[in-house]
Amino acid sequence: MTSQHDEWRELGQQLRVDSIRSSSAAGSGHPTSSMSAADLMAVLMSKYLHYDFGTPDDPRNDHLIFSKGHASPLLYAMFKAAGAIGDDEMLTFRRFGSRIEGHPTPVLPWVDVATGSLGQGLPISVGVALAGKRLDRLPYRVWCLCGDSEMAEGSMWEAFEQAGFHGLDNLTAVIDVNRLGQTGPTMHEWDLDAYRRRAEAFGWKAIEIDGHDVAAIDRAYARAIETTGQPTVIIAKTEKGHGVKAVADQPGRHGKPLDDPDAAIEELGGIRSIHVEVARPDFTGRPHAFPTTTLTLPSYEPGTKEATRKAFGDALVALGKARGDVVAVDGEVGNSTYTEEFAKALPDRFFQSYIAEQQMIATAVGFQVRGWKPFAATFAAFLSRAYDFVRMAAVSRANIALTGSHAGVSIGEDGPSQMALEDLAAFRAVHGSTVLYPSDPNQTAALVPQMADRAGIVFMRTTREKTPILYQPGEPFHIGGARVVRQTDDDAVTLIGAGITLHEALAAADALGAEGIAARVIDLYTLKPIDAETVRAAARETGAIITVEDHWPEGGIGDAVLECLAAEQPHPIVVKLAVRSMPGSGTPAELLAAAGIDATHIADSARELIGRAGARGRSGTEVGSGRRE
Amino acid sequence: MTSQHDEWRELGQQLRVDSIRSSSAAGSGHPTSSMSAADLMAVLMSKYLHYDFGTPDDPRNDHLIFSKGHASPLLYAMFKAAGAIGDDEMLTFRRFGSRIEGHPTPVLPWVDVATGSLGQGLPISVGVALAGKRLDRLPYRVWCLCGDSEMAEGSMWEAFEQAGFHGLDNLTAVIDVNRLGQTGPTMHEWDLDAYRRRAEAFGWKAIEIDGHDVAAIDRAYARAIETTGQPTVIIAKTEKGHGVKAVADQPGRHGKPLDDPDAAIEELGGIRSIHVEVARPDFTGRPHAFPTTTLTLPSYEPGTKEATRKAFGDALVALGKARGDVVAVDGEVGNSTYTEEFAKALPDRFFQSYIAEQQMIATAVGFQVRGWKPFAATFAAFLSRAYDFVRMAAVSRANIALTGSHAGVSIGEDGPSQMALEDLAAFRAVHGSTVLYPSDPNQTAALVPQMADRAGIVFMRTTREKTPILYQPGEPFHIGGARVVRQTDDDAVTLIGAGITLHEALAAADALGAEGIAARVIDLYTLKPIDAETVRAAARETGAIITVEDHWPEGGIGDAVLECLAAEQPHPIVVKLAVRSMPGSGTPAELLAAAGIDATHIADSARELIGRAGARGRSGTEVGSGRRE
Repeated sequence: MTSQHDEWRELGQQLRVDSIRSSSAAGSGHPTSSMSAADLMAVLMSKYLHYDFGTPDDPRNDHLIFSKGHASPLLYAMFKAAGAIGDDEMLTFRRFGSRIEGHPTPVLPWVDVATGSLGQGLPISVGVALAGKRLDRLPYRVWCLCGDSEMAEGSMWEAFEQAGFHGLDNLTAVIDVNRLGQTGPTMHEWDLDAYRRRAEAFGWKAIEIDGHDVAAIDRAYARAIETTGQPTVIIAKTEKGHGVKAVADQPGRHGKPLDDPDAAIEELGGIRSIHVEVARPDFTGRPHAFPTTTLTLPSYEPGTKEATRKAFGDALVALGKARGDVVAVDGEVGNSTYTEEFAKALPDRFFQSYIAEQQMIATAVGFQVRGWKPFAATFAAFLSRAYDFVRMAAVSRANIALTGSHAGVSIGEDGPSQMALEDLAAFRAVHGSTVLYPSDPNQTAALVPQMADRAGIVFMRTTREKTPILYQPGEPFHIGGARVVRQTDDDAVTLIGAGITLHEALAAADALGAEGIAARVIDLYTLKPIDAETVRAAARETGAIITVEDHWPEGGIGDAVLECLAAEQPHPIVVKLAVRSMPGSGTPAELLAAAGIDATHIADSARELIGRAGARGRSGTEVGSGRRE
Repeated sequence: MTSQHDEWRELGQQLRVDSIRSSSAAGSGHPTSSMSAADLMAVLMSKYLHYDFGTPDDPRNDHLIFSKGHASPLLYAMFKAAGAIGDDEMLTFRRFGSRIEGHPTPVLPWVDVATGSLGQGLPISVGVALAGKRLDRLPYRVWCLCGDSEMAEGSMWEAFEQAGFHGLDNLTAVIDVNRLGQTGPTMHEWDLDAYRRRAEAFGWKAIEIDGHDVAAIDRAYARAIETTGQPTVIIAKTEKGHGVKAVADQPGRHGKPLDDPDAAIEELGGIRSIHVEVARPDFTGRPHAFPTTTLTLPSYEPGTKEATRKAFGDALVALGKARGDVVAVDGEVGNSTYTEEFAKALPDRFFQSYIAEQQMIATAVGFQVRGWKPFAATFAAFLSRAYDFVRMAAVSRANIALTGSHAGVSIGEDGPSQMALEDLAAFRAVHGSTVLYPSDPNQTAALVPQMADRAGIVFMRTTREKTPILYQPGEPFHIGGARVVRQTDDDAVTLIGAGITLHEALAAADALGAEGIAARVIDLYTLKPIDAETVRAAARETGAIITVEDHWPEGGIGDAVLECLAAEQPHPIVVKLAVRSMPGSGTPAELLAAAGIDATHIADSARELIGRAGARGRSGTEVGSGRRE
C-alpha cells in the first residue's frame, strides 16, 4: 500500500461521487454501472493513459473507448478530473443542448465514436488498433472499457477473433464484470474463468483481477503493456454501485439515479476536486504516409459491356494509388466486389475482414477515427448484417464509404438469400447518408473518388451483370446528380431507373419509340440526395412517371421520386415498378421479367399509363447523354 | 473396415457425383463446397438422422439445417438419395420455376429455413433445439452443417454461447473444415484445435476427426448422441472438392461448376443410384401443450395515461394465458419492453436471449419452425442489429412477431444511440411484412392477438412515454386499418400521425380549431398494409396532408402515405414532418420541438400549407373516434 494507491482510491471515489452527482442532476442515467468501473479508470488515467486533452487530434494520443457507453457518467467524471470539462458542464448531463449527452458521442472532441448500442466499442477499438499497427504505424495504445452484459453480443467475438488474429498488442480491453445486467444477472455472473477461457481460446492474454484493488489493477495494466504479440483483456470482478451500500450489487438499480444521492456521496467521503495530470504521448513520430501517384481513372469503351462492380474495383485501385489515405476492407468476397484488385495492387492498405460484416464496418469506423478513408465492401445483401453498426456510425459522424455488390433479382441463379432488395431503403434511412446506384462503368469510375471526400455514410450499390457502356470515358458525374438520357419536346412519359433497370428503361423507350411514343429516360444514379429539379422538370413536362427498381417497392427509387414530388401541383401520375413477390432462382432476364421490371413490363406500363392520362405520345428522339446534368 | 463402411463411402461418392451433376446442369453453384461434406452427410443420413420424408411435418422428425446453405447441391443430392425428389428434379437445380433453388428455402417441405446468408443456420438450430427441450419436450435431434468460413461471424458465437448455456445436448453441429473460403484460406485453415478451444470454452463437447474417414465419422456421431448436458460439435478436417484431383484443395474453385464434370464423375466411380432408407422417428409422443384460459385483454380507462409498450406487455400476458402456443423472447431489456410481465406470469414460455439480438431473432425463427408463435422484443433501435436475420426470416417464410420499444426522439435523455429512427423504413422494406405503430394502449391490446395469427414478419413499434387513452376498451381495431380521429365536412387539411405524433397532431388540431381551421386527424396505426382508402378519401376531401413522424424522413409514415397517393389525380399537397437533424439528449418535449414534430410545428405547418393552397378553413368539430374504421 502506497500513497499512490491512496490517491487512486480517492480518485475512484471522486469518479463515483461525480457519477452520482451528474445522474442525480439529470434525473436519469447509469451511476451504478459507472461506479463499478471507477477504480479501473482511476488507475488508467493516472498512470497508463497517454492523452493530450488540449490537443485531441494529436495522432500520437492513446484512444479510450467506452464500449459500455451507458457508463457515460464515469467518462464525463474522468473528463472533469482531467480538466477537459468543468464541474458545471459535467452537471449539464443529459440536458437539452448540452454536449454531455446520455451516451457519449463525438460532439465531445475527446470521444472517438458514439457508443450505447452494446457490443460496438470493442470492434471499433480493434479498427483503431489495426490502424495504429498497419496504417499510422505509431505506438499509441487503445483502451476499451467493456461491460459484462455485452459479452453476449456476437460482435464482441468477431472483435476478439480479429484482434487475436492480427496480434494487436496495442489493444487492452477491460471487462467490468459487475455481474448484473439491466434486468438481472448476466449469464456468467462472477465466473471470471468463463470469460478467461473464451478470451484465451481466441488468442488473447487474459488477466483476472479484483476490479476494486488498485494495486491489482496497476499490475494488470503493467502486464498488458508488457505483453507482445497478442491483445490483453483484463477481466475485473467488480460490484455494480460499489461503495454505496444501498445500491452495491443490488438488483433493480440499473439505469437509475440513486434514491438518496447526498447520503451516498457522504458514504463515499464527500465531493472532491482532484485534478489528474494525464500523461501526454511520450514518443515522437508522425503517421505513416503511403506513396502516391496521379489519379488515372479507368475507362470503358462505349459499345462494350462491363459490370459496375468491376468498374468500382478498378476505380478504387486508381484512387488508392492517387491517395495514400484510401484503404479497403472486404468481407471475404473480394472477387465478387472486385476489391481483390485493390488487395493485389495495394496489399498494405487492404484488410480482410473474413465473413464478419459487423467487424468490417467497425474496422472502417476505427480507421476513419484516425483520418483514413475506408471503403468497405461485400454483397449488398450482407451489409444488412451490420445495419446497427451503420446506424451508430452515423451517430458517430463517421465518414465511411460502403459498396454493396450483387443487388437485386438480376444476380440470377443464386436466389433470394444473396439478393439485396432492401438495401436502398435501409441506407436512405441512415441520417446524413448518400446513396449512389450507378448505371454505367464510366459513371461509376467518376463517382468513386467523390465517395472518399463525402461526409457521412456513403453507400454505392453495384450490379453483378455486365451492362452496356452508356457514357463516354471522362464524362462528368457528380453526387447529387441525375442524367437525362433521352428527351424530346414531346415526351409522353418519363421512365426513371438506375443500375440494371436503367438499361431496361432504355429498351422500353426504344420499343415505345417504335410505336411513336416518346419517353424521357432518367438515370437516377444518386438516390440521396436526389436531383429534385430534374425529376420535377420531367414531372411538369411529361405528366406521367414510371419508376423501375430491382428492389422491394418500399424505400427505394420510387419512394425517393415520390418524396421530391410531394408538394408538386399539378402532380404527375406516378407508377412504381418494383419486385413484389419473393424471387427464386433463374437467369437475370427471367427474374427481371418475373418481377415485372424488364423492358417489356415497363413499356406495357407506359402504354397503360398514357392511355389512362390521355395519350399525347409522338415520335421519340434520342437526345443522347449530357443534357440536364 | 466393414461393408457398411463401404456403403457409406459409396454413398459419399454418389453425393459428390450428384453435386457435380446438378451444378454442371445449372452452370453455377457450389460443388466443391458440397464434396467436402459428402462423407459427413452420408453417414448421418444412413445411420443417425431420423426423419420421415413422407411426413415432413411429423413433430418427431429430426431437423437437418445446412448453415452453409451454398452446399445446396449436397442437400439436394441427399434428398434424391432419400427418395424425396427424383433425379430429374434434382437436375432442375437453379432453373427458373424450380424449387431446387440456388440456396435452400422452405419451398421444399424438408427445408426448415432458408440459408445462404452465412452464420444463421446454427443460431436457428439453437432455436429449434431449445424448442425441443423446453417447448415440445420431444427427443428429436437437431443436426447442423456449418462451414468453416462462417465461424468468423459473431452470430455463430452467440449460438455457441446460448447452446452451451442451455446445455442443448439434442444439438450437434458439424463444422466442415475444408480450409478454403470464397477468395482464399480461412483464418484458421486446418487448425482444428483453434475451433476446439473456442467451442470448449463456450461449453461444448468438441470432437476432432478426419471428415473423410467414415469410421471416425460414425464414432463421432455416436459420441454426440451419447453426450448429455452439453451440445456437441464435430470438427471435421475435409478437403474442398475432395475426390477429384483437379479441384481438391485447390484455390479458385469456390462457387463454380467443374471444368470437366464427366472426367470428375468417372474419377469418382461414375453415377450411382443408391437409395437410402432414412430411419423414421423411433419414439412416440406428441408436442407438449401448455394449459390455457380464455382471453381477457387488458383495458385502460379514457382520461388516464399509459404507454403503449406497457399495453403490449399486458396484452402479451393475456394472449399467452389464452394461447399455449405463444412464447416470448427478449434481449435483456424486459423491464423496458414489458415482456417481463410475460416472464413472470408464464416463465416456462419465456426465453432470455441476453444482449444477443441476432440469436433472439434466430430463436424466434427456430420456434416457429416447430409451430410456436414467438414474440421477440427489444428496443426498436437494437432490432437493427438483427436486420439480416429478419431479411432471411422473410425468405424462410417465417411467421414471427417483433416488438420494438423506445422509438424515436421522444424517448428523451438517453440520446440517439437508443432512438430508433429508421425502424419503420427497415421493416416496411421486408417482404411480406406488417408494420404496426399503435397510438393508444387499448388499440395496442386489440392488435397484439392479431400479430400471432398474421403470416410473415409482423413488427410493432411501441412508445416509451405514457400517452393519453384515446379509445374505449374493447373498441375494434384491425391490422390494415387506420382510424379517423377527427373529421368535419369542412376539413382544410389532414394531419396523419401514429404513436407519439398522433397526440401532437391532436393538440395541433385543437390549436387550429381555436382559429377556425378544421383539421382532419388520422391515426395511421398500420403503416403496412396501409389503409389506402382512408388516406385517399382524406386527400380528396381536404386537398392537403401533413404527415408527422418520430423517424427520419425516409421510409416511414410520410413515404407510406405518398405511396398510396402516387396515382391520385388531383393529388394533394403533402408535407412531411420528420426528424431531420441528429438529436441529442433532452426531455421528450424538447426533442419533439427541436425535431419540428410537436403540436406547435404541426400547426404552423398547417397554417402555412393552407395559406399556400388557398385556405378553406372553417370551424373544426370533434367527431370522436369510430368513423371510417
